[in-house]
Parts: sequence; structure tokens; C-alpha cells
Amino acid sequence: MTFIQSLQAAWQRNDSLLCVGLDPDPAKFPVHLCGRGAEKNGSIFEFCRSIVDATADLVCCFKPQIAYFAAHRAEDQLEALVAHIHLTHPGIPVILDAKRGDIGSTAEQYAIEAFERYGADAVTANPYMGRDSVEPYLAYKDKGVILLCRTSNPGGSDLQFLDVGGGMKLYEHVARLVAEDWNSSGQCALVVGATFPAEIARVRELTGDMPLLVPGIGAQGGDIEATVKAGRTGNGDRPGTGLMINSSRAILYAGKDEHFADAARRVASETRDAINRFR
Amino acid sequence: MTFIQSLQAAWQRNDSLLCVGLDPDPAKFPVHLCGRGAEKNGSIFEFCRSIVDATADLVCCFKPQIAYFAAHRAEDQLEALVAHIHLTHPGIPVILDAKRGDIGSTAEQYAIEAFERYGADAVTANPYMGRDSVEPYLAYKDKGVILLCRTSNPGGSDLQFLDVGGGMKLYEHVARLVAEDWNSSGQCALVVGATFPAEIARVRELTGDMPLLVPGIGAQGGDIEATVKAGRTGNGDRPGTGLMINSSRAILYAGKDEHFADAARRVASETRDAINRFR
Repeated sequence: MTFIQSLQAAWQRNDSLLCVGLDPDPAKFPVHLCGRGAEKNGSIFEFCRSIVDATADLVCCFKPQIAYFAAHRAEDQLEALVAHIHLTHPGIPVILDAKRGDIGSTAEQYAIEAFERYGADAVTANPYMGRDSVEPYLAYKDKGVILLCRTSNPGGSDLQFLDVGGGMKLYEHVARLVAEDWNSSGQCALVVGATFPAEIARVRELTGDMPLLVPGIGAQGGDIEATVKAGRTGNGDRPGTGLMINSSRAILYAGKDEHFADAARRVASETRDAINRFR
Repeated sequence: MTFIQSLQAAWQRNDSLLCVGLDPDPAKFPVHLCGRGAEKNGSIFEFCRSIVDATADLVCCFKPQIAYFAAHRAEDQLEALVAHIHLTHPGIPVILDAKRGDIGSTAEQYAIEAFERYGADAVTANPYMGRDSVEPYLAYKDKGVILLCRTSNPGGSDLQFLDVGGGMKLYEHVARLVAEDWNSSGQCALVVGATFPAEIARVRELTGDMPLLVPGIGAQGGDIEATVKAGRTGNGDRPGTGLMINSSRAILYAGKDEHFADAARRVASETRDAINRFR
């Protein structure tokens, strides 16, 4: 199964558009997982595994953010985490959030890192260096490539909102370029922040039913109703899909004691249901 | 000393604008460093250390490319390599070529990775997500941040050459934005490919004496004379500076046997001299 097929199946099977982002910050872990050097002793893996096992039937995908592992020399724990998800929760795709972008020969190395070393089903990538910087990922035909388009941070407008002619902003140009050119093999998706629902709607208009990864609900304050209505695909009898709506901190750190995984499950369940009310 | 000060001192001390890029590909190593699983046994470190020790008096900086280490699970060898450079060749700055770009809370983790874990003096970063995605790096006041501007690959034009109004291309906008805003603390530099000398000249015009990291000579075919004349700063009695002209493959793989480090030194020396003829 390709990444896109796994995602579609998970949307249906778990009746969910929720992506749980795995951004493990040991400083925010429950006390029993803390302690000097805890991150070296597998506590990052233990924390993430508990979150994954508590939420796997409520999500359409998981998205580990590699920076949180790299900052703690915990690449081995990231390898173990992705392997655990594939073994214990088969069919739930894993997106490696790495936002890489480099020339072809280097991008080949990043593709090896994401797909062969970590076994991710999809990777996020930065479009600034153009199509040939993305092709090494696309060479893995069963994998997905999720390009940054309109990001949820305040500085996102610095470049992405520039007018590039023809009445288009840069993020719209990226959406059209990916939809009409880079996605010829059907492996692409786009990142569009929940903090800009009007722009989610615009990207949806430009990209047909391409999946959109939407960060920015939860801690970043994006509105669920506006996000879902702007970005969902399909208008038949079945609930809309087409979205991976990410929440990280609001779920990971919902609880601060040994019952943190139960608290995470409760928030994940509420978030899934809140999303489903507007599908 | 800050990154910029170290770079300026190295330009003078080694009379060199040459940056040696450390992109170790075990498939291209000399036979005596190859063999099954060689990359796990420290051969990536051994190869790079030989190159570094053979060229350290000929360069203004070294630039390890993290993808080549990550693809081989060799983060520990990258840590050892940067530590070796600092210990054995003090004063030669190390640029971690990572081209990261993410929202502030994640960029903080990437800054920890680059500066605290690896001990790099500067890091390359992608400007697509805007100023707040760069600020966590700038918070390390003695470190440098080198932003992608005009990249040397063919697809670089896909976005960077878009007209963003006011007669400016996107790469020119990035150059001006970095020079006039993001560089308020004097920590920034830009990446401009040697494959586009006219655009190096344009970026030089927009950025005063900001250092430019120029990949694309050697294997990628950029012209040394045109690059140096377009990008050098200063026009007094002393040779121009302002450039870090990168060569990776042409130096690393100059020789294929046990004398590979001598061959690398010879090519590095020739490249430095070829650059110096036009300063």
C-alpha cells in the first residue's frame, strides 16, 4: 500500500482526520519519566510509545518531529518508535516531519534517512529549492512527500504571502506547481496552517482532492470548524476527508502525572469528535 | 570570537576563500576504507579526518553536510569530526550544512542540535518559513546563520526566480530582507550558487559586505573567475574577501587509493590558488 492509500484507509477505519504530532520535550514529561539523563535511557521512546498506544485507534496518522529526537541524541529512539508503530498498529502511516530541502545528491541521502533508516511512510519537505530537490523522495513510489505551502507561524507571511504575479501569492504558486507538476505520480500533499482558514480554502480550490496536513489547532490557536469546512474533500453521503489535522502539545501534555496517556487519549478523542462534527 | 570574526581571521591567516565541503559517501571511499559495514566502524570519521588534516591550512572553513552522516546512522562520527576540527585546527570555523527550517519551538531544537550537540559555529537554514523560524539560531550570539538565497541546482529557479514585484526576483527579496532586517545582529550570511555569477553580483550589490557561501564550483561546473569577480568584497590594497567558495566532491574524491588525502590537498591547493588569482 502506498502512503496515500494507507492514509485513505485510516481515515475510514478510525473515522478520524486527526494526526497526533510526536514532539517529545523531556522538560515537559511527567515526573516519573524525568530525572537526570532520562532521555538517554529510553524515556523519549517510552513517553511516545505510551501516547501512540493510547491514541492509535483515534488517528489517521502519526507525525514524529525529528528535531526533538536529534536535539537529545535520540535517533535510536526514533527508529524504535517508528518500528513500534508499524508492528503494533499496522496501517497507521507515519510522517517524518523533517522539512528537509537540498540539491539532488544530498536529497538522496535525506531520502535514505527518512525512508530506509527510519521507515517513514512520508516526509515533509521544503519547496524553496525546486522540483529537483524533491525528486529523490518521489523515486520511492510507495512513499509520500508533503511540501510546505502556507505555514502556521507568524513569519510564514514573510515570503509565502508575496505577490508573484497573475494575482497569485507565493503559497498559491507552490500549491499550483505541486498540484499540476510535481504530483504527476500522485505522491504529494501540502502543509497549510490552521491559523489561515481562508488560505486552506484557496489551496483546496487549487489542488483538487490532494491531502492537506494542517498544523496549528490546539496550542497554536487555529479554529477547528473553520479548518474542516475550508479543507475537507467530498460532498456526497459520507463524511469529508482530505485532511490530516495535527495536534501535538495539547495532546502530549494533557496530563502531567502517571496517567498522562489516559489524559492524552481523552483529548485526542475530543479533538477527533470536534473535527467530525464539521465533516 | 564569533563565527564572522573567526571567518575573517581564517581568510587572512590561510590566505584562502576556500570552503571544503565534507559530504562523505562510503561508496566513493578508497578501497582500504571500504568493506561491509565500514561506515559503522568509524570509517566516515577516518575519511573526513584525513581530508581535514590534509587541507586545514588551505581553507577558511569546513562544511560537513549532515545528510551524509544521517543516512548512515553516523551522528556520533559527525560529533567526533567537529570536535576534532576544533581541537586540532582551532580558529577554522565549522558550518553545519543542514538547511533546516521550522516554526520557533522546533527551530529551538534544531539550534540545540547544531550548536550544542555538534558544536558547529554556523548553520545553513531555509528562509521559506520567515524570520521567526530563524530567530532561535540568532539567539546564540556567537554563531552564524547562513540563509539559502539563490541555490546552484537547476530547480532553484522554480521559486527563487519568480518576480515578486518592484522589479525583484524572490532571491533578491530574500537577500534584501536578510541584509536589512534579519541581520540586525550581524550574524547572517547567504548561499548563492556559483552557477549564476550575475546573481552573485546582484546579491553582493544588495548586501554590502555580508559573507556569501558559494557552492557549485568543481563537480557542479561553476566558473571560479566569474564567481570571485562577482562576489568579492573590498577594493583596497589587500585581496578581496567576503566569500566562502565551497568545493566538496572534486576535493574529497580526487584520489582513489591510500594517498587520497595527498590528492585532496593538491586539488584544494590548486583551487585556493585559482581563486586567489582573481581576488
